[in-house]
Amino acid sequence: MPTMNTQVLFRAAPAGMPTQDCFDIVETPLPRPDDGQFLVENLYLSLDPYMRMLMGGGWMFRGGGLTPGQIMVGRTIGRVTKTQNENFAEGDLIVGGLGWQTHAVSDGGNIDFRITPRDNVPLSAYLGACGNSGTTAWFGLKLIGAPKPGETVLVSAAAGSVGSVVGQLAKVWGCRAIGIAGGDEKCAVVTGEFGFDACCNYKADDLAGQIAAVAPNGVDVYFDNVGGEMLDGILPLLNNYARVPVCGVLSQYNADGDWQGVRNTRLIFDKRLRLQGFLQSDFADRGDVARAELANLVGSGKLRVRETVAEGLANAPSAFIDMLNGANMGKQLVKLR
Amino acid sequence: MPTMNTQVLFRAAPAGMPTQDCFDIVETPLPRPDDGQFLVENLYLSLDPYMRMLMGGGWMFRGGGLTPGQIMVGRTIGRVTKTQNENFAEGDLIVGGLGWQTHAVSDGGNIDFRITPRDNVPLSAYLGACGNSGTTAWFGLKLIGAPKPGETVLVSAAAGSVGSVVGQLAKVWGCRAIGIAGGDEKCAVVTGEFGFDACCNYKADDLAGQIAAVAPNGVDVYFDNVGGEMLDGILPLLNNYARVPVCGVLSQYNADGDWQGVRNTRLIFDKRLRLQGFLQSDFADRGDVARAELANLVGSGKLRVRETVAEGLANAPSAFIDMLNGANMGKQLVKLR
Repeated sequence: MPTMNTQVLFRAAPAGMPTQDCFDIVETPLPRPDDGQFLVENLYLSLDPYMRMLMGGGWMFRGGGLTPGQIMVGRTIGRVTKTQNENFAEGDLIVGGLGWQTHAVSDGGNIDFRITPRDNVPLSAYLGACGNSGTTAWFGLKLIGAPKPGETVLVSAAAGSVGSVVGQLAKVWGCRAIGIAGGDEKCAVVTGEFGFDACCNYKADDLAGQIAAVAPNGVDVYFDNVGGEMLDGILPLLNNYARVPVCGVLSQYNADGDWQGVRNTRLIFDKRLRLQGFLQSDFADRGDVARAELANLVGSGKLRVRETVAEGLANAPSAFIDMLNGANMGKQLVKLR
Repeated sequence: MPTMNTQVLFRAAPAGMPTQDCFDIVETPLPRPDDGQFLVENLYLSLDPYMRMLMGGGWMFRGGGLTPGQIMVGRTIGRVTKTQNENFAEGDLIVGGLGWQTHAVSDGGNIDFRITPRDNVPLSAYLGACGNSGTTAWFGLKLIGAPKPGETVLVSAAAGSVGSVVGQLAKVWGCRAIGIAGGDEKCAVVTGEFGFDACCNYKADDLAGQIAAVAPNGVDVYFDNVGGEMLDGILPLLNNYARVPVCGVLSQYNADGDWQGVRNTRLIFDKRLRLQGFLQSDFADRGDVARAELANLVGSGKLRVRETVAEGLANAPSAFIDMLNGANMGKQLVKLR
């Protein structure tokens, strides 16, 4: 039985890309659950781009930033090991916002959902395709993108945890799926493993021309994870009445006030486009429905899961930085146990 | 009984702002209705910014531009004077896309709706607050803006035919209404005559600061008629989950490829905004419902109508150019008869 808890704390805001200096790794005594609380041993930690925003040194959600010394915010899969809360039993598997640490106490308020293990669905998938990455893809594509069978769905960051699910859901729902990813290796995974109809390499020349060549009928849904210049270049490729779920602005997280303008915004009027920003939490009340479909698809092999897994909490900062640099394929996780 | 029809033809695309040279005024023999057709005498012609787009020399709807020699596209109020169509009787008053001319034959296909005259609603209002300008405001505000009582609605081009209705509907529907207009004289009409809570002058300094001062709780709906830099400056003033019906890009109609970028598009994600472009025709199937409410409001004095009326078709080109320069107050019409 461990007696210590390992934690990663936020030390200081980066200028641009984060570095190891932005983090402190500390050991503290294992917390004990009070009345109504329970102790969780974390098994996997999810690393996600939104964490960069919370670190400041540029842009952050209004009022939602980290303060120095605070534990890094993050979602984990954990197992309840001690409990004084009647709703959570020893051995329960949960997903929640328990932070970058090996153990945590909770009163249940920061628990997202309970995992019911099932055949053919790996536990780690509940942080990815069957967890918030999957529901982010499902919510944005279904509720904002609203694709009709036969339409063309384009998604940026297509090799990532959200993008890879978007394209696969588009196929399941009868659409043509086109990805955008960085490099030939990622593009090969997007088409070969995730089964997209095509993938365009934004690191090669003429991205717009590449997309136009594989989307001869134009684009009906652009699931935008990137923003900035890429969005600007894609707006002219959209069909009238196209929908743009805006899921993130990867291109801008490290920009320090020097944001890329989008020149083609007038096409919002010309083409009667709908652009809508969203967070997974905006639709959390529909999480059960989305997770059920996603777990069915993973279990039946129709939704492929790809993960990049770092080993041990001490490697979380470097894995996080690698992910922001685009080194990961699919969901970036840290295995804690 | 007249024997000739006066028409304004499109001669050539302007470079930037149109000039008189872009138009030809011609006389042709009065057309005669064939079987299934009827002859209309036009009483009023509506002049609208979208016509600039159809003239090319910059941006235009895909495939919808005018060709030289073609009659200028436009909507009129007319009276049926001869008929060989059983659905349209002599004396019927109609609104339709009959063009810049004193007379027209129609088979009914380009007729928008039939006017049922009523007390306290001037005939010309059916091209404005009770016609497509009004339904444009109603559709965009209600179906895209979806304002809740107590919310703050901001509208640009607030002294114009659409903007003036947007703010007045916002008030009727229980919202705070803030306008943006060019100059103190227009702002005085927006608050004094149209009853907005406040109006900001974009020709004076610090438009964003002016808006922030009169919208202490932020902006929930921005009804955008302008686009470009004004939209860019307003995005930071929007509340989370704000809606932006994009009804036009007045700032860009004369821009020849040199479009203004919008730097703050990343706020679409940050604030979970919804931006949606639309045309009146996208919601035409709900026109009857909207027109009924608008006519009731005009008839009962709750919706004020303001018009700028030029006399005679020969003055249509100059009135159109004046309107593009912002000289009109409210709906710009030409009285033909």
